[in-house]
Parts: sequence; structure tokens; C-alpha cells
Amino acid sequence: MRTKQQYIEALSKMRRNVYFDGQLIDRASELQMDCINVIGTTYDEAQKPENEGLLTAISHLTGRKINRFTHIHQSTEDLHKKQDMTRYLCQKVGGCIQRCMGIDAANAIYNVSYEADKQNNGATSYHENFKKWLIRFQDEDLIGCCAQTDVKGDRMLRPADQPNPSSYLRIKERLADGIVVEGCKLHISEASVADEILVVPTRALRPDDADYAVSFAVPGDWEGLKQVVTIHNLRPREVYKRGFTPGATDSYLIFEDCFVPWERVFLAGEYLHGSVLALLFALFHRHSYSGCKPAIGDVILGTAALAAEMNNIHRQSHVREKLAEIIMTAELGYAAGYTASDLGRPEVYMPGVGFVPYGPGSYIPHSIYCNVGRCLTGEAVFREAEILCDISGGVVAT
Amino acid sequence: MRTKQQYIEALSKMRRNVYFDGQLIDRASELQMDCINVIGTTYDEAQKPENEGLLTAISHLTGRKINRFTHIHQSTEDLHKKQDMTRYLCQKVGGCIQRCMGIDAANAIYNVSYEADKQNNGATSYHENFKKWLIRFQDEDLIGCCAQTDVKGDRMLRPADQPNPSSYLRIKERLADGIVVEGCKLHISEASVADEILVVPTRALRPDDADYAVSFAVPGDWEGLKQVVTIHNLRPREVYKRGFTPGATDSYLIFEDCFVPWERVFLAGEYLHGSVLALLFALFHRHSYSGCKPAIGDVILGTAALAAEMNNIHRQSHVREKLAEIIMTAELGYAAGYTASDLGRPEVYMPGVGFVPYGPGSYIPHSIYCNVGRCLTGEAVFREAEILCDISGGVVAT
Amino acid sequence: MRTKQQYIEALSKMRRNVYFDGQLIDRASELQMDCINVIGTTYDEAQKPENEGLLTAISHLTGRKINRFTHIHQSTEDLHKKQDMTRYLCQKVGGCIQRCMGIDAANAIYNVSYEADKQNNGATSYHENFKKWLIRFQDEDLIGCCAQTDVKGDRMLRPADQPNPSSYLRIKERLADGIVVEGCKLHISEASVADEILVVPTRALRPDDADYAVSFAVPGDWEGLKQVVTIHNLRPREVYKRGFTPGATDSYLIFEDCFVPWERVFLAGEYLHGSVLALLFALFHRHSYSGCKPAIGDVILGTAALAAEMNNIHRQSHVREKLAEIIMTAELGYAAGYTASDLGRPEVYMPGVGFVPYGPGSYIPHSIYCNVGRCLTGEAVFREAEILCDISGGVVAT
Amino acid sequence: MRTKQQYIEALSKMRRNVYFDGQLIDRASELQMDCINVIGTTYDEAQKPENEGLLTAISHLTGRKINRFTHIHQSTEDLHKKQDMTRYLCQKVGGCIQRCMGIDAANAIYNVSYEADKQNNGATSYHENFKKWLIRFQDEDLIGCCAQTDVKGDRMLRPADQPNPSSYLRIKERLADGIVVEGCKLHISEASVADEILVVPTRALRPDDADYAVSFAVPGDWEGLKQVVTIHNLRPREVYKRGFTPGATDSYLIFEDCFVPWERVFLAGEYLHGSVLALLFALFHRHSYSGCKPAIGDVILGTAALAAEMNNIHRQSHVREKLAEIIMTAELGYAAGYTASDLGRPEVYMPGVGFVPYGPGSYIPHSIYCNVGRCLTGEAVFREAEILCDISGGVVAT
Ligand SMILES: Cc1cc2nc3c(=O)[nH]c(=O)nc-3n(C[C@H](O)[C@H](O)[C@H](O)COP(=O)(O)OP(=O)(O)OC[C@H]3O[C@@H](n4cnc5c(N)ncnc54)[C@H](O)[C@@H]3O)c2cc1C
Ligand SMILES: Cc1cc2nc3c(=O)[nH]c(=O)nc-3n(C[C@H](O)[C@H](O)[C@H](O)COP(=O)(O)OP(=O)(O)OC[C@H]3O[C@@H](n4cnc5c(N)ncnc54)[C@H](O)[C@@H]3O)c2cc1C
Ligand SMILES: Cc1cc2nc3c(=O)[nH]c(=O)nc-3n(C[C@H](O)[C@H](O)[C@H](O)COP(=O)(O)OP(=O)(O)OC[C@H]3O[C@@H](n4cnc5c(N)ncnc54)[C@H](O)[C@@H]3O)c2cc1C
Ligand SMILES: Cc1cc2nc3c(=O)[nH]c(=O)nc-3n(C[C@H](O)[C@H](O)[C@H](O)COP(=O)(O)OP(=O)(O)OC[C@H]3O[C@@H](n4cnc5c(N)ncnc54)[C@H](O)[C@@H]3O)c2cc1C
Repeated sequence: MRTKQQYIEALSKMRRNVYFDGQLIDRASELQMDCINVIGTTYDEAQKPENEGLLTAISHLTGRKINRFTHIHQSTEDLHKKQDMTRYLCQKVGGCIQRCMGIDAANAIYNVSYEADKQNNGATSYHENFKKWLIRFQDEDLIGCCAQTDVKGDRMLRPADQPNPSSYLRIKERLADGIVVEGCKLHISEASVADEILVVPTRALRPDDADYAVSFAVPGDWEGLKQVVTIHNLRPREVYKRGFTPGATDSYLIFEDCFVPWERVFLAGEYLHGSVLALLFALFHRHSYSGCKPAIGDVILGTAALAAEMNNIHRQSHVREKLAEIIMTAELGYAAGYTASDLGRPEVYMPGVGFVPYGPGSYIPHSIYCNVGRCLTGEAVFREAEILCDISGGVVAT
Repeated sequence: MRTKQQYIEALSKMRRNVYFDGQLIDRASELQMDCINVIGTTYDEAQKPENEGLLTAISHLTGRKINRFTHIHQSTEDLHKKQDMTRYLCQKVGGCIQRCMGIDAANAIYNVSYEADKQNNGATSYHENFKKWLIRFQDEDLIGCCAQTDVKGDRMLRPADQPNPSSYLRIKERLADGIVVEGCKLHISEASVADEILVVPTRALRPDDADYAVSFAVPGDWEGLKQVVTIHNLRPREVYKRGFTPGATDSYLIFEDCFVPWERVFLAGEYLHGSVLALLFALFHRHSYSGCKPAIGDVILGTAALAAEMNNIHRQSHVREKLAEIIMTAELGYAAGYTASDLGRPEVYMPGVGFVPYGPGSYIPHSIYCNVGRCLTGEAVFREAEILCDISGGVVAT
Repeated sequence: MRTKQQYIEALSKMRRNVYFDGQLIDRASELQMDCINVIGTTYDEAQKPENEGLLTAISHLTGRKINRFTHIHQSTEDLHKKQDMTRYLCQKVGGCIQRCMGIDAANAIYNVSYEADKQNNGATSYHENFKKWLIRFQDEDLIGCCAQTDVKGDRMLRPADQPNPSSYLRIKERLADGIVVEGCKLHISEASVADEILVVPTRALRPDDADYAVSFAVPGDWEGLKQVVTIHNLRPREVYKRGFTPGATDSYLIFEDCFVPWERVFLAGEYLHGSVLALLFALFHRHSYSGCKPAIGDVILGTAALAAEMNNIHRQSHVREKLAEIIMTAELGYAAGYTASDLGRPEVYMPGVGFVPYGPGSYIPHSIYCNVGRCLTGEAVFREAEILCDISGGVVAT
Repeated sequence: MRTKQQYIEALSKMRRNVYFDGQLIDRASELQMDCINVIGTTYDEAQKPENEGLLTAISHLTGRKINRFTHIHQSTEDLHKKQDMTRYLCQKVGGCIQRCMGIDAANAIYNVSYEADKQNNGATSYHENFKKWLIRFQDEDLIGCCAQTDVKGDRMLRPADQPNPSSYLRIKERLADGIVVEGCKLHISEASVADEILVVPTRALRPDDADYAVSFAVPGDWEGLKQVVTIHNLRPREVYKRGFTPGATDSYLIFEDCFVPWERVFLAGEYLHGSVLALLFALFHRHSYSGCKPAIGDVILGTAALAAEMNNIHRQSHVREKLAEIIMTAELGYAAGYTASDLGRPEVYMPGVGFVPYGPGSYIPHSIYCNVGRCLTGEAVFREAEILCDISGGVVAT
């Protein structure tokens, strides 16, 4: 497994294709350091003996020890550990740990590429392609991001009906040795500090939309790809220069006549599988939320409780009620993920049919519980900010 | 195990001490039949081979097969099954199954009586008393209700400080062969159709409140006890005379100079254990809610979806959003209970200390998850009624 | 102006066409008395000298003193008084006063019939018809109800496209001396105790729907009309036999080959005016809600505060917060109606155009403020029930 | 009336006592320009002929035309105009107009100083002091801020019981020619760009707290006063360099041995009047919210609607529902203020007594309607942010 230092060195060697404020920047630039420190935590913590097993796993492909963020879930225990690892690390950095998009996309593609090949009766080798990519991903302990969200243009039109055919990322040309893609992916978290970019479709697709059913992985500095980055750093601490300062970035990814060789392609035209892939990434990602959202609840809870104690109002009933509300949201979100993990199977839910076997045997969390948890915690963030302000008084907003 | 018929016969032989509308009534009166049919379902369904294991259990005291509603949880699997049994039966009767108060009180007393004896160093034999009572309860497949809620008088005063000393039920006298109790218990569900009444304290108690730290069980027609019953029957069906018609009752229990022999007493004066008992019954009961509330959500969901289909509005986005909201509440409540079951242990949570071993080894669901689930689903009933009205239109209210 | 006694006598002389539980009943039957007492309050209170001006008005047609519930609003002061009269009377009866549908429908038809005639260039005399009807309505101090809600069938289809052409009430035939109508109107409040039934369309209409653009008034016992009534009486008081017991009824109105002479017809085929009429009745009715909903808030507030005082919890912060929430909803609803009254004009709002003059000069409340008020208070009823239960404890539900 | 230019010149001549980031700054520094431009709008707009009457008023003391932000309300019309002026200007600047604290504090002090003198039977001349101050304030068209919020320390202790006696600002010494005050006021909006600072108490006071019942006005650069400023500027626009860029500041005001001559003192020791003053400023300020909060709703509504149109989702029912919710909150807040204005009187509400005459005849908005409006719109801001994000998608947050 890599160290944080090795990760940073790798970043600094990448081709400069990231634009900030109109200028090309170095990936390891000071500007991006807060975000890099967040992801770095996933390396530092995985080295600690006490985190062995929680933050590491044994690869089912190679039998080697790997960072859990590169693992394909083999059991309900793996699902439980992924949720608990996420909560643990998000508590550490006081926010999003930024590395779940990679593991979620990898698990989704792993399953869908298998099913697509099966239905294509061996005419394609998406799954083998992906496994090869995955072994390197695991062995080199790489950071992956997931590029799903398209520009989308007119929301009432499907991809193939858009006036601009590249409103959704698409296969522009099919060549003997690969495909040429074109389009943009938006708001892609930590793409500017990722080694690899995993591309998946963003929505359900019809036969007409076959060119939009495309999945592949390319390095973040690949030929034909430009990134325009937004960097979310907090104002630097001035008075109390202690504690961890989290940061985040997201990128606008521009693919122009971008060539992707077949061994990096995991889906190319199978529109039904493309639809499932869109949903399956979302499903794994909702499972991640059952780890991170409770962690954020924990942090807000602690902050609010501290503010309440400073003002000596922590025993007042309206304050206790609000703190209890934060706990309720956090733990319900956790319980939803816990149940989704425990009821996880190598199966997906087909509306009108029920659960059916899916993929080569890796574990998929239960979709109902992933969804209800996400739904609750996703809506809770505004309420949590409100509670924090209510309890802390004017000091938060001024 | 008893049949529904045997249960009804037993009821009809009980002493007449139940008042309705100013008159003494027979327990098996037509007036109470809707409620009796609900509870009867727990007998009918337990007889069905396909429900073996879910609705039945093996007594850890006798090794005999018993109705699960009389069982003391021996494992996380027992906790899971109690939740699932409750959801299953509440779906069947379309509402509260009315038999969980007995199992929840029994489990609470089982643990607390053990700890009280332990601390009394053998000076008391509450736990042995309770086990004897329990074996008969299991073997005769009896219905128990739980009498917790006191009159309470001035809510700002503790029991011993009330102007009327019997505002909370209390030990009025201690005799050689038993105790004399006095006071009332209010809103006690299905007490008028129960074989046994399990009495537990209603709130935290101080040393001064020792006389209020009392727990015991008496038959529903015991000397010194009167019941004033409220019966909740629906208006009889006129047009479509099909389906199951649920009913419910609750009683105002009046204990006047009521003698209880020591072998039926499970706590008498240990105020700290009395406080724990109040909380522990509530905890087991919140776990029950994680079964019944999702079931009620299921029923409302089905009704609302049917109404929507009749009006051909089931594909409209605002209707789907509301149906999804019902699912969300139901399944989050279920997930909370599932997690509480799975993390259950022979332990209780002590604020400031954490989980500590408790009781003789039976399983207690995890308190945080019981509480957050109850909190969510308890508040949801008004919103669910609102959604049902929104989707169905005027027909529900007129 | 009539007395309550005269009103009841008139009811008892009407033709028996009201069915309850499969049987024809007398209108002045004991069954309907709780509802009749509610409406009777509008007669009793209007007689009291101290209510002169608030509950009475001077007819702009005859110059005679009339009950304000039969008045056409001539000023913002009239709008203010209608709101205040409604709040006053609903407080008296502890719920819906049941007489606002008549005044709201009358005001809507008064304006729309005028505009329809104007656009028909004198080819119709809807407005004169209505004025004649209105003078009798005012002089005889009659009770009117408003029949708007149709059966509607498949909600995704417009009236003329329904498989059953009478899913919405329609003109079946046009004769020299009148029209023949067919269809049903549902959930029509107090139709079974009303002298007159005012019929208006229920939704926006297209040219194809011309036969559904129909408005007229007939006595409640008119030939060709049957009523199936639902009666909402509370359980009779047993212990404290004091105070006022409100009741309500609503009817399923069945029009079969029902002939309506031209002098009772106020719209027949003008689909655009039909659409406006549907909206305008709703607008006046929303203005009524700004009187009744605050009154109901007042009653719930008083009940909850009394319950809180009995339990000595009225000074607890969570109780005060909940009482404040009831006040907030009630007074915001009142403020919305107040503003709608004060900004009232002989104008209606045309989307994309703004306010335009409308009708013969009578006053219409401001539509934005009517709507926002209705929206708030309409959604609040479930929350108010929840608060009442929270504060009162188990006694409300058992 | 002053021009914006004259206002800025006056600022730049003030003594340097404002600290930013540890350094003394010029008041007219570039850093504060966004905020100064906001306040400047109140000068620019008041010059426009079409705003005459709305943004200007005639002083009841001098008969001269003044900026309405320096006016004492003389009628319900003045109250209506203050609300409408506030909504108009906040729409212009897209946020808080920053000048209402001055007018609200002035109106509160005007009334309370009169009542205090009356009760002191002429022993004090607070009201005359204030009128003299006010004439200059009006004639020179000054900016006033209101310093109410104290540090407060332990929230469970009243001012006189705090370990640190200056946790609330207090009279430290009474001299022949004035008083010496000590303490801090926190989060004081626009104090760093104000000509005058109006000081009022922050909460109800007991006899023991007499030294805390103090009100006075001093220039922002007064001897004995330091300011520590926080400046809220948006990130500068980079791409579309158009439109108005609002800014805001607030200060931590430190009064150390600060001498205030009697002619600038408006209350000094009358604890009951101090309590009323705290409430009365809050009341006037809540009335201001009925202007600004609807304006902010208008701006968010426009932004959200524009985003929806760009994505072609503006006709989708879930989007329309959310836009309607913003309208509902904005217009209910407006209606509450409208009603409060229209029912305004020279009276205040005494709990248990009702409305009683108060002050020398100037108009005070109705307290119930001010409060319910504030309550609604105050809680709505988090929900509005949520809606904006829901409708706009990821672009807002990234
Ligand atoms: C943008 C902004 C601008 C402002 N502008 C001004 C201004 O121009 N002038 C001005 O004077 N102020 C201004 N303020 C300050 C504002 O009025 C205060 O922040 C507000 O009144 C809350 O006071 P606080 O911050 O001291 O919080 P607190 O009052 O301490 O409240 C914090 C929490 O403590 C609780 N609490 C406090 N006391 C008790 C108690 N006794 N019992 C139980 N619970 C208690 C509260 O309910 C709350 O939950 C501004 C604030 C902001 C955010
Ligand atoms: C106590 C009471 C008293 C009443 N009194 C009167 C009265 O005096 N006079 C009178 O005329 N009526 C009265 N009504 C009827 C009331 O006005 C209607 O119930 C109400 O307008 C809803 O109509 P509905 O019942 O047909 O439901 P629907 O309108 O069918 O609504 C049911 C659901 O379908 C949805 N829906 C319907 N159409 C569509 C569509 N095209 N697209 C998407 N979704 C759709 C709605 O949003 C809702 O969720 C009364 C009702 C009650 C409860
Ligand atoms: C359908 C139904 C079935 C029931 N079945 C049973 C049963 O089988 N067995 C049983 O034992 N009970 C049963 N109950 C009773 C139920 O447990 C109680 O109603 C519930 O615990 C509330 O108690 P209460 O009614 O005394 O209300 P209270 O506890 O008096 O609450 C009323 C209000 O007072 C407030 N309050 C009370 N004390 C304080 C305080 N010290 N400080 C501040 N605020 C306070 C509360 O917050 C609440 O707002 C049932 C109730 C219902 C509705
Ligand atoms: C902090 C952050 C990090 C992110 N990280 C990533 C990432 O790592 N990878 C990634 O792929 N994406 C990422 N995203 C993007 C995120 O997934 C999208 O913002 C989100 O899915 C919404 O998509 P959108 O912004 O295109 O909004 P839209 O989907 O356009 O939604 C805007 C509004 O339009 C409505 N709407 C859209 N289509 C329809 C329709 N057909 N019918 C009716 N209504 C419709 C929606 O309901 C909504 O109200 C991130 C976003 C944020 C804020």
C-alpha cells in the first residue's frame, strides 16, 4: 500500500491539464493541499495497526492486502466495514473523506461489466478489462473518482434528442483499437487530485441512446481531457491554529476527441446495462452516505453541544431536543446502512420481479435501505445548519 | 399452546369487574369482540405450520414450545423474530396486535428482578417469584397487559410530593404474606381482555419515592381491582361486509386496598431498580414499535396506492413522492429496529459509563436504535394521515 | 330576517328526498339537529343588537337589512366584516359555521354572470336571473350550499373525454324554457339542511367541455334531485352535559334528468366563464378560511392551554413553544385574510396581465393573500391535532 | 438630505477606531465599499422624484422633508410605507438594506424615554434629550445602528448576577455631567459605517439590574469606544461583471470607561423601562423584517425560477410547488406586517391587561402580527436555501 507522500509525488508528476482561475496549475499546488490532506488521511490511517481489517482488506483477485477503498465487497461483513470505515474517517477529517466515489464506481462496474459480457455471449470482454484495471488499481493503491453527472441541457429531452449531441458524454467514433468519446462531466469531486477517472452514464437510456451507454477509466491527465477545477477551502484559521483543516475540489471535465483503448473500456453501447450501471453506482454511493452523513452529524453534534456548554444552556429542554434531533437523524441514517449491509446479497432488485441474482458473486447492499437512509440524511443538512445556528447564537453567522 | 376458543372461554369465566358506560359487562361480550378477534389472531396464526419458529419459540425455562409472545429473548435472532412477528401480525389485523405489552413487560421484569435480588444479596426472591409466574404464563399461553401509566396529578411534583399520595400507585402497607397497594393505572391497553396485569413504575424515582417502586402481576379480575373500560370499535361495515375488522380497548384500573401475595411481587421498594424498570419496559416496547409502525405504514401505503390507482393518479410525481415518504418512514423505522436487534446484548446503557452487563443473560435490544426508531415513527402518524387524505381526496373525510 | 325556528319549520315542510342509511328521512330529524343548531346560531346571533353591522348588512339591491351571509360585498369594509363574522361565529360553535358556502358561491356567480352577459352582448340575462334569485335569497334569509365537486372519474381526462359523460355534471338537453342537467356532486356540505343549492363548475374547461360550463340554483328538494347524506355527529356527551355540541352533514347529490328553468340558470355553455367561476368560488371560499381557520386555532389553543394548566405544565418551555405555534398559524392565516380584504377591489388577477376590472363593482378579495393564507392554514390541521395530543397526553386518544 | 458622496466623505473624516484583522482601517476603505454601496442606495433612491413620499417623509418635529429612515411613525400610513420602502430597497440591493436598525431603535427610544420621564414626574429629561438628538439625526440625514446584544456570559444568570459585572453593558459611574459606561456589544450590524450608535438593553431586567437599564447614543468614533469589525463580502465576480454586489459588516463594540454626557443619555437606571425598551426595539425591528424577508424571498424566487427555466423544468409540478412555497412564505410575512401596520396604534400590549396607550402619540405596529410574521420568515431561510439548491442542481454548491 502507498504512503501519503508517494501519492503526492505521483500527483506532482502528472501532465498539467488542470485549470484554476484561467491558469494551468500543478496538482500538488498549495491551493489543493487541504483536499490532498483529506485524502492523505486514508493512507495514514490505513498504515496504523489498530485499523488493520477495518481500513484494509484482502483482495479476492490477488490475495494481497489492499486499502479497503480499492476493494470489491465479498460479504456482508465487507459492507459493514465499508460503512464503519467511512464513518470513522469522516469523523477524523470533519467532513467528506473524498475517496468513496472510486470504490463505489468500481463495485458498480465490476458487476455490470460481468452481466453485459454474459448477455453478449463472450463477444465482449468488459469484465476481464475491468479486472485487469482493478488489479493495478489495488496494487498501486490509486485514487479513483467517478464521473457521472452530464451537462444534460434541456432536462425534458433524452440524451439522443438533445439539440447538442454532446450534452451527454457519448461515443463519437468506434475504432479497431478503441473508442473516441466527447462531452463533459460536471461537478466531479476530487477529479483534480485523482489518479484515475471512472466514467459511468448518468441516467436511464433507451435504444436510441446507445452511444451514451459508455463506461471506461482513464488517468486524470489523459490526452484529450481538460479539467476546470473549483477549490473549496475554508478561510485559514487565524486565532486557534490547531486541528485539521479539510478541503475539497470538484472539476468540470472536458473530453474532446478523446481516444480510449478497448482495454480501458467497460461498456460501449449496451443501453440497458448502461441504465443499470447508472443506478448501481448510485446505490453503492448511497450506502457510503450511511457512513459519512452520521459522521457529519457526530461532528455537528459535538460542536453544538460544546457551544451549548459554553453558554451554560446544555440542560435547557429546547437545546436537548435539538441535540436529540441530530442524533436521531445520524443514527437512523446509520441504521439504514447497517440494515442494507446486513441484508446485502449478490442480487439486485428488479421492479415487479423482486430480487434476482446479479454479477459474479460480489455483495450489493439492499436497495430499499440504502435509499431510505440517503433520503433522510440528504434532506437533513439544512436542518442541521439551522440547529447549529439556533444553539450557538450570533457567533456562527457573524 | 391455547386456541383462540379456549382463550375466549377463559375470559368468559372471569369475575365481572369491568365497567362499561356505568354497567358491569361480561368480558366476552359482543362489545369487546373486535378486540378479542385481534388478539385471537395471535393464537390462530401460531397454530399454522408455516409460522412455526416465527410465532413460536422454545422456552429457555421448560424447553417446551410456547407462543413467542410469552418468550424471554435468548439471542439476537429472537429479537429479530420478535420484530418480524410483530410486523407480520399487525399487517394481518391492519393495526395494533395488542399483545406486545405483555412480552415487553415480562422481558423487562425478568431482567430487573434479577438485578434487584443480586443487589439485595439474597434477601429477596423477586426473580424466582417471576420465573414461577412466567412458567405458568408460558404454559397456559396467557395474555398479559402492562399497567405503567399513573394518574400523576401535578406534573411538576415527584410521586412522594403529590398532595394525593395515591396519584401514583404505591405500597400502602407491607404485611407478612404480601403487600397492599393503592392507586390507579390509566389507558391500559387490552386490560379488559387480558388474563394477567403486569404492573411497573412509570418514571424515575428518588429515595423518598420508595413506596412507588413496585412491580407485581395479578389476574385481571383480582380482588380489590376494578376496571373502567373504553372500547374503540369502528363503525360496522355496511356496504362491503368483508375483511378483518380490528378493535381495541383500554382500561382505567382502580386498585383499592388490593392485597398482592409475595409470590406475585417482583419489586417492592428498591427505588433505583424501579427507575430502571420504567425505562426498560419502555425500551422493549420501543423495539415492538419497530415492528408495528412499519406494518401500519404498509397498510396505509397500500390503501393510498389503491386510492391513487382508482383515480388514475398513481403516476403523478406528487403522488409518488408521498408514497415514497410513507415507505421511507416505515423502512427507516424497520431498519432502526433491525439494527437494535442485531446489536442486542445482555447489557444496558448507563449514561456516562457506556454499556454494562445486565440481567441473567437474556437479550436486550440496543437502546439508541430503539429510541431513534420510535422517535421517527411516533411522530409520523399525523403526517401519514395527512398523506392519505391528500391522495384520496374528499372521500376519506366525508 | 328569519328566526332559527322559522328556518327549522321551512326545512320540515320540504319534500323528502334525503336518504340516510338507505332510508328517506325528514330534514328536521333528530339526526340532523346538531348540524341545524350550528346553522341556527347564524340566525340567533344576527338578532342580537350588539352584533348589528357585523352579522347584518344593508342590501345594495333593496336597501333592506339582511343577514350578512346573504350579502354581496360592496367595500373592503364588507370583506373585513365577513372575515370577522366568520371568526366570531366559528368560535361560538367550536368549528365550521356551515353557512359560508352560500355567500361565497353567491358572490362568485354575481360577478361571473355579469361578465358572461357582457360578452354575450345581451343575448343572455344570467345576471338579471341571478339578481332576482338573490333578492328572494336575501329577503327570505335562506341557507345556500355550494355544489362544486364532481365525481371526476379518471383524473387524467378532461370532462368531455371521460368514458362516462356524466362524470362531471352537464347540460344534457337545452329546451325552450330551460335546461336538463345530469350528473352528481359529491361531499356537498350542509346540502341536506339547505334551502337552496348553488351549482358551479369544478375546474378549468376547454371549448369541448362547453356542456359542463353550467351554473344554476335549485331548492334542495327539487324534482330530479336525490341526496344521500353522511351525518357527522360527535358521540353524545355523557358526563358533562354542558356546552354547545356542533354537528355537520354532507351530501352526495344525484341529478337525474333534472329540469332547470332559465330564470334559475346563471351560466350555460360559456366555457371560459365557467373556468373563472370555478376559480372565483374557490377564491371567495379561501377568504372564508381566513376567518374559520383562526377560530379553530383559537379553540384548539384554549383546549390545549386548559389541558396544560390542569397538568401544571403550562410554564414548561416545550408547551409554550407549541402553544405559540398554534397562535402563529392562526394569526398568520388571519393576517393573510385581513390583507386580502384590505387590498380587495372589483378586480381579478389574470396571469401574465395583472389585475383587471371585473364584475359590476362588487368587491373581490386579493387573490395572492387569499391563497397563501389558505395554503398555510389548510396544511396546519394535522399539526394542530398533533400538538393537542402532545400537550394533553393519553386522555385525548383513549 | 445628504447624498451618498457626502455620507462617504463624513465616514472618511471619522477618528480611526475600527480594527480589521488586527489593524486599524479607514472607514471608507475599499474593504468596506460593498457595504457602503448598500447603504448608499438609501441616499440615491431617496433623491429620485418617483420615490418621493415612499422614501422620504415630513418630520413631525421640524416640518422639513427628511429621509424616511430617520422618521418617527405618525400614522398607520407611515407604518405601511416603512414596510414597503424596506421591501423596495432590499429588492434593489438583493439583501439586507442595513439602515433599519437606526429607525427601529429611534422609534423605540422615542416612546420609552417619554414614558420614563412621565413616571419620573419631570425629574429626568430623557425625551427632550432624545428629541434634540433626533432633529440633528434627521437634518443631517445620519446613519444609525443599534447596539443591543451583550456578551451575556452564563445564560442562566441575570446581568447583576454574572461573575463578570460587565458581561452586560452597564453604568459604571454616575457623574454630574454624565455617565461612565463599560461593556461590549456584539455582532452590531454596520456599526463600522454608521455615524451614530444607539445603545439599548438586551433583555428584561430586575430591580437589581438597574445599572444595566441604560440607553444612549454616541458617534461611532467616540472616545472610549473601539470596534472590531467582521466584513462579509462575496467573492468578487469574475465572469459576469454586472449587477449590484451587496456587502455587510458587523462589529464587536468595546466600551471602556466611556463617558457619555447627559444630553446623549435616554435612560439610566429605570429597569422596568429598560425591559420595555428591549422589547420595543425588537418589535419595531420585527416590523422591518416584514419588508426585508419578503424582498429576499422575491430575489430567491426569481433566481430559482430563472434556473428552472434554463433547465426547462419550470413546468414540472415539483418545481412549481417549491416556487409556490417561497411565495407563500414571502407573502404571509408581508401580510403579517401589513396587518401589523394597519392595526398600529400609539399603544403597547401588556400581558394580562391588553393594549394600553403608550408614548407621546407616535405609531407602534401591532405586536401579535409583528411576531407571527417574524417567526415564520425567520425560520424560512434554511428552507429557502434548500429549495434553491433542489431546483438549481449541483451548480449552486460547486
Ligand atoms: C447577521 C447578524 C446581524 C446582527 N446584527 C445585530 C445588530 O445590529 N444589533 C444587535 O444588537 N445584535 C445584532 N445581532 C445579534 C443577534 O441579535 C443575536 O445574535 C441574537 O439575539 C442571539 O443572541 P446570542 O448570539 O447572544 O445567542 P444566545 O441568546 O446566547 O442564544 C444561543 C442559544 O442559547 C439559548 N439561550 C440563551 N439564553 C437562554 C436562557 N436564559 N434560557 C434558555 N436558553 C437560552 C437560546 O435559545 C439559543 O438556543 C446580529 C446577529 C447576526 C447573526
Ligand atoms: C369535509 C368536507 C366538506 C366538503 N364540502 C364541499 C362542499 O360544500 N362543496 C363542494 O363542492 N365540495 C366539498 N367538498 C369536496 C372537496 O372540495 C373535494 O374533496 C376536494 O376538492 C378534492 O376533490 P376530490 O375529493 O375529488 O379529490 P381529487 O381532486 O380527486 O384529489 C385526489 C388526489 O388526486 C390528485 N389529482 C386529482 N386530479 C389530478 C390531476 N389532473 N393531475 C394530478 N393529480 C391529480 C390530487 O392532487 C389529490 O392528490 C368537501 C370535502 C370535505 C372533506
Ligand atoms: C392508545 C393508547 C394506549 C395506551 N396504552 C397504554 C398501556 O397499555 N399501558 C400503559 O401503561 N399506558 C398506556 N398508555 C398511556 C401512555 O403511555 C401515556 O398516555 C403516555 O405515556 C403519556 O402520559 P400522560 O397521558 O400521563 O401524559 P403526560 O405524561 O402528563 O404528558 C402530557 C404533557 O405533559 C408534559 N409533561 C409531563 N410531565 C412533565 C414534566 N415533568 N415536565 C415537563 N413537561 C411534562 C408532556 O411533555 C406532555 O406534553 C396508552 C396511551 C394511548 C393513547
Ligand atoms: C458537492 C458536490 C459534489 C458532487 N460530486 C460529484 C461527483 O463526484 N461525480 C458526479 O458524477 N457528480 C457529482 N456531483 C453532481 C451531482 O451528482 C449532481 O449535481 C446531481 O446529481 C444533480 O444534477 P444536476 O446538477 O445536473 O441537477 P439536475 O439533475 O438538472 O436537477 C435540477 C432540478 O431539475 C429537476 N429535473 C431534472 N431533470 C428533470 C426531469 N427530467 N423531470 C423533472 N424534473 C427534472 C430536478 O428535480 C431538480 O429540481 C456533485 C455535486 C455536488 C453538489
